[in-house]
Amino acid sequence: MEDILQIIEDRKEIYLEWLVRLCRQPSIAAQNVGMAETAKLTEEILQGIGVETRQIPTSGYPVVYGEVGSGEKTLAFYDHYDVQPPEPLELWESDPFAADIRDGTLYARGVADNKGNIIARAAAVDAYMRARGELPERVKFIIEGEEEIGSLHLEEFVSQNQDLVQADACIWEAGYTDPQGRPSVYLGVKGMLYVELTARQANVDLHSSWGTVVPNAAWYLLQALQSLRDAEGRVLIPGFYDRVKAPSESDLEALRQMRFDEESYRRQFGLTAFKNGLTGLNLVKEHIFQPTCTICGLWSGYTGQGTKTVLPHEAKAKIDFRLVPDQGPAEILESLKKHLVDGGFGDIQIDLLGPEHPARTPTNHPFAKLVAETAQEVYGKEQVVYPIMAGTGPMYVLCEQFGTIPTASIGVGNSNSRNHAPNENIHIADFYRGIAHVATILDRFAD
Amino acid sequence: MEDILQIIEDRKEIYLEWLVRLCRQPSIAAQNVGMAETAKLTEEILQGIGVETRQIPTSGYPVVYGEVGSGEKTLAFYDHYDVQPPEPLELWESDPFAADIRDGTLYARGVADNKGNIIARAAAVDAYMRARGELPERVKFIIEGEEEIGSLHLEEFVSQNQDLVQADACIWEAGYTDPQGRPSVYLGVKGMLYVELTARQANVDLHSSWGTVVPNAAWYLLQALQSLRDAEGRVLIPGFYDRVKAPSESDLEALRQMRFDEESYRRQFGLTAFKNGLTGLNLVKEHIFQPTCTICGLWSGYTGQGTKTVLPHEAKAKIDFRLVPDQGPAEILESLKKHLVDGGFGDIQIDLLGPEHPARTPTNHPFAKLVAETAQEVYGKEQVVYPIMAGTGPMYVLCEQFGTIPTASIGVGNSNSRNHAPNENIHIADFYRGIAHVATILDRFAD
Repeated sequence: MEDILQIIEDRKEIYLEWLVRLCRQPSIAAQNVGMAETAKLTEEILQGIGVETRQIPTSGYPVVYGEVGSGEKTLAFYDHYDVQPPEPLELWESDPFAADIRDGTLYARGVADNKGNIIARAAAVDAYMRARGELPERVKFIIEGEEEIGSLHLEEFVSQNQDLVQADACIWEAGYTDPQGRPSVYLGVKGMLYVELTARQANVDLHSSWGTVVPNAAWYLLQALQSLRDAEGRVLIPGFYDRVKAPSESDLEALRQMRFDEESYRRQFGLTAFKNGLTGLNLVKEHIFQPTCTICGLWSGYTGQGTKTVLPHEAKAKIDFRLVPDQGPAEILESLKKHLVDGGFGDIQIDLLGPEHPARTPTNHPFAKLVAETAQEVYGKEQVVYPIMAGTGPMYVLCEQFGTIPTASIGVGNSNSRNHAPNENIHIADFYRGIAHVATILDRFAD
Repeated sequence: MEDILQIIEDRKEIYLEWLVRLCRQPSIAAQNVGMAETAKLTEEILQGIGVETRQIPTSGYPVVYGEVGSGEKTLAFYDHYDVQPPEPLELWESDPFAADIRDGTLYARGVADNKGNIIARAAAVDAYMRARGELPERVKFIIEGEEEIGSLHLEEFVSQNQDLVQADACIWEAGYTDPQGRPSVYLGVKGMLYVELTARQANVDLHSSWGTVVPNAAWYLLQALQSLRDAEGRVLIPGFYDRVKAPSESDLEALRQMRFDEESYRRQFGLTAFKNGLTGLNLVKEHIFQPTCTICGLWSGYTGQGTKTVLPHEAKAKIDFRLVPDQGPAEILESLKKHLVDGGFGDIQIDLLGPEHPARTPTNHPFAKLVAETAQEVYGKEQVVYPIMAGTGPMYVLCEQFGTIPTASIGVGNSNSRNHAPNENIHIADFYRGIAHVATILDRFAD
């Protein structure tokens, strides 16, 4: 590996330049900003290292698809070129699309989630081929443009291109070093049901003096929302937990080895305690193996400065339910609808914004072990294996829907990368280590 | 009165022109838009009819003060030149400051609340003096600039100018015809406690996957808000109802004579039923004599289009409590604080945005009767007497704080004037009747 690692060292400024270029190109799927430009730029970067690429259209944003190398085995990289909206802008210390570098850290919307990984994988392929002439396996890049809006058309893409997505294993989009610098390997993802609820009462906002006798859409929505959870946050929708699988003994062993540094996270988030005072193994079990019901957005009436004495006729909430194996989003949506109707909230409108199945690869699969062992070699620290990540992705659609592709998720983020939040960032040293890790996997996977 | 009414008829285009001019000048106190320009324009219009005016500074926006006429008795007009914010702009059918006239109706932010009344009173004085040469009493215009933000400095103004505000009676800012065209007379106002609540949890918005173990500011605020009211909307703050006076027998008699057209309002608001299915005298009693707790605004997290999977660290609500005699805003604020602390919500920040005392004049006061009788004469319909209006105003500060000035509120609005809401409007015919009513009061008050 020395030859390959030397090339990574020699070309590190070039790889960083690719990353800066990609981060400076906004690609906000939810707002339809810069999507075509980013797909084109991603293709250009891959073509520059000898990958044969094309954009495969979907009913939404196209998938950037690329192939390079040959051999008996095929390794796929799943990534996405879209990013989350950057708002609230006023909390960013530098422009979210400036890709500003301060103290060895690169700040940009999407740098951790997941442009840093797109470039790390491209750079690993580049370094490998420069050192050895060719790859020992076939590599596929599958880079979609709708991950941050729920991968709305990935299922369509996979169904129509089943041959293209076949692989012997898949490297998933993201990973992070923990506060002790240990690299993570994720073997599954949570699913998701993302809905927008709209409550309406009168046909127009009224003077708030009518609050005596006219129903208020905000109070009404609050009642409906409160019916979804108890005070501890346990979801009250009947049947919600029916398909939740309890962690196996080996899952719990992985959690124990994780040595999750709850104090670092707690301090980093500025919390006096985690939810319900959770600590230790119970905290990690909750985080990895439990579904959630999160208010991501909430608004009604007057939200400007000063006072406005208005009775709102409409109120809205964006809710995401993170699902765990084997909860299915369609089934949970039906349960939610029934629960609202049964609770007397049947007139609340439910818009489905993003469904996603949970998925996972067994902890003791050989590919999972290969990724974990190479992580330990490159980072010089014990890897941390998550049986399921707390986050979500379309792993089911790509790797379980038509046959099973073993999958592991790794990447260049850190524990304070602030994905989806202001000041998203990666440490540049993690970026270089991430390149080396992918290059090592490329070398070992063909054996 | 024929001579005066003829002059109103002759000059109606001119009076309408004054009104359009004043409505086209924005004066949004909450957003500090156009306040100085509007104070100046108001003075100019009054000076044009021979009123001696000046702007009296306060720590906030100045009061436009004017005097005209002489005689044994003094009649004061209380009005305000500020208006509510016009948002949401997209729901206006014409620009809120265009003063567009369609089918005999003038649409503008502030035309009903309360620029139409400023001009109606000025026009009545103008017509009276043109017909008779001089007024039979002294008239005082007291036009403040902060009514829509809680009359923050009116108390300061009144305290420092007690001689200027002395009067034998006061005509208050606003009144409306009901769906049958009957004019209203209001003999009191509700008080108000307007607060903004801010809940905070983590120190930054996080990826919503942390919803498993990190507290969510939106859920937390919802729990606090739910602790304020029961499902029927009854306020749960201990002591909240202690000072609420039950209506007297004569109050109830006024409510019965009101023949409140609940069906018209219900249809107009697009409701299938009023809150808790209230109807008849119970509906009117609730509306007139009960305090409220209204969410005027609510927001947290991502409120843009599409999905953003974020865990909000901050959530805010604007709440107005409408108070009835003898609830005091300072006392209710203390009760609210204690209630939140006792409920475990002591870390929720409370910002006081507007306190106001309730106030009222007895139903059988001679001035109340004079205003009601002249209304019936001018409108040719039975007047409707409200012992207290459902809305709020600084009547206590001006008319009860230092001695008691009998007060009645009348005006040029209608039952669909949409005060504080999009498409605020008055019927131009109501504007002319309102001028005639004020002119008749000017004539009869000196007797």
